[in-house]
Amino acid sequence: MSTSHLAQEIAQQPTVIARLLAENSPQVARVAQAIRDFNPTFVAIAARGTSDNAARYAQYAFGVLLGLPVMLAAPSLHTIYQAPPNLARALVIGISQSGQAEDVRRVLQDARQQGALTLAITNYPDSPMAQTAIHHLALLADEEVSIAATKTYTAQLTVLAMLVNALADRPHLRDELSQVPRLVQETLDLSANIADWAERYRYMEKFAVLGRGYNYSTAFEISLKVNELAYIATTAYSEADFRHGPIAMVQTGFPALLIAPQGALLDNMRDLAEKLSERGAERIVISNDPTMLAYGHKVVRVPEVAEWLSPLICVIPGQIFAMHQALTRGYPVDKPRGLSKVTITE
Amino acid sequence: MSTSHLAQEIAQQPTVIARLLAENSPQVARVAQAIRDFNPTFVAIAARGTSDNAARYAQYAFGVLLGLPVMLAAPSLHTIYQAPPNLARALVIGISQSGQAEDVRRVLQDARQQGALTLAITNYPDSPMAQTAIHHLALLADEEVSIAATKTYTAQLTVLAMLVNALADRPHLRDELSQVPRLVQETLDLSANIADWAERYRYMEKFAVLGRGYNYSTAFEISLKVNELAYIATTAYSEADFRHGPIAMVQTGFPALLIAPQGALLDNMRDLAEKLSERGAERIVISNDPTMLAYGHKVVRVPEVAEWLSPLICVIPGQIFAMHQALTRGYPVDKPRGLSKVTITE
Repeated sequence: MSTSHLAQEIAQQPTVIARLLAENSPQVARVAQAIRDFNPTFVAIAARGTSDNAARYAQYAFGVLLGLPVMLAAPSLHTIYQAPPNLARALVIGISQSGQAEDVRRVLQDARQQGALTLAITNYPDSPMAQTAIHHLALLADEEVSIAATKTYTAQLTVLAMLVNALADRPHLRDELSQVPRLVQETLDLSANIADWAERYRYMEKFAVLGRGYNYSTAFEISLKVNELAYIATTAYSEADFRHGPIAMVQTGFPALLIAPQGALLDNMRDLAEKLSERGAERIVISNDPTMLAYGHKVVRVPEVAEWLSPLICVIPGQIFAMHQALTRGYPVDKPRGLSKVTITE
Repeated sequence: MSTSHLAQEIAQQPTVIARLLAENSPQVARVAQAIRDFNPTFVAIAARGTSDNAARYAQYAFGVLLGLPVMLAAPSLHTIYQAPPNLARALVIGISQSGQAEDVRRVLQDARQQGALTLAITNYPDSPMAQTAIHHLALLADEEVSIAATKTYTAQLTVLAMLVNALADRPHLRDELSQVPRLVQETLDLSANIADWAERYRYMEKFAVLGRGYNYSTAFEISLKVNELAYIATTAYSEADFRHGPIAMVQTGFPALLIAPQGALLDNMRDLAEKLSERGAERIVISNDPTMLAYGHKVVRVPEVAEWLSPLICVIPGQIFAMHQALTRGYPVDKPRGLSKVTITE
């Protein structure tokens, strides 16, 4: 296990985030100034897979801290239907580890032609997406070999958080951001014991991952990791949407993971944990709140962290849980069956 | 079965849609004129559960036919975080069967205060949401008693399609729309044989529903119906996103439903069906294309229909499949465990 690329890349996350904070600030400041000058009416983000979950994070971070409405673009409008909507007044961001996502690149290209402000966030400054957008912000994550994205996901979140910090210009955000590398390292240490109890879920065939607000993104990302690494039928839900139907499927033993750090959603998540408890659901909890952790059959206690940065922390135990589900089932963690590192869709 | 409210309400859909087309045009024309006058930069739609899937339909119908970018609003920005993003230049639509969704109402309220053009689409003109928005369009669906929404979903799609028709002002759209009640009735008739083969899936514990473009909405809605009625761990994916990870879980016998009517996505969906076939997946196909239907172990052939209206047709067999999964498992179809007709979240 310790020699898999996946395990190594998970462990590299504090280093990558620290590097971004140390080296990428001038580039981020330049993009932030361009955004201020452009003064977008809204933000559209195009992405696929893991990168789309980074976009979900931006929906809340840009919304709460900048008052900017964020839409997740529908790339097929640009490719399949060849009917790009009018994005001329938007900041249009394309996110992709490889920078090779052709459908995402097409959104950037159409938007740029319409006069939108375009930004690519990728790990490769020479990539097609980086070349298509007006601006590029690099992930500085070195090569990611494992097919399941981990360090590039938290690097994407970090770049987005740095952009929010540069635009919001509130001193406490900067201080909070500077602590993330240390907090991610602490979280890695606190997640070590997942290996001890991962076998409990060896035969789990379905799995719900629940979060909301900032950690709606985390629910989707952990769900995707478990899905692609351990081949489990996993679905992410917002706490609210789950109550509007899917909660019907919960009965004794139904396994659910709750992502519930301290913050504005804690009461809602605790109430949902109570409902799951009443129905006898199996509960895994990722939290830094003792009253929330009390609901878990298995728990990962994470460090205290400002809510807006909690997705960078809370995703870590999920990555590790997904890896151990693959390991305990005997699946290859670096190359899940049927997947390639770069998936090109149109 | 024939006496359940669910079965009756599924059967009422042609009548409800015909009534909307016959009676709601003046109101739709008035709202369309208000939208033209306001000239929104983008559209934000707030909704939960089934209504959120109607919003997903609008993302494509407004995008392809009107060039309007559509975002799905994040209600928690308005309620939990009390940080409403700036929607002043948007058409903001709230969709809810009951009109009582408090979080959706709050989005409308904030948007109206900001100067946005607001529209509620509900079944109750006296509902809180209808009273909060500047404009209201009624679903004219009579009372929906079954907890699982069916006729109000297709009514929501119809109202949105009527709005698109009124704004796009292309004669062929109107003609196509006028045929929907007849096509939905034909689809109901063609779906009758689902009862004969539903038992094949009696022990299915997980299920993927795949669509894209216009029928991304259909995939989500069928997934939700199967989930809430038959308590199966069901997930909807876009054809593109599925290739970016979740396809890893497909092996022999993995059950998937493909929604693939004729239209711009047919080639993509056929290619995905081929991939699923290579991996030995179990395939149910809803389509009006013979080459696509050939991929199905079980199929529902639906009538030919213009692609932009195909979600109104393709969802019908999914509703009926979900009902039969509940029936064959002995679950109450009108009142799934743990659900209420009106779910209020904040």
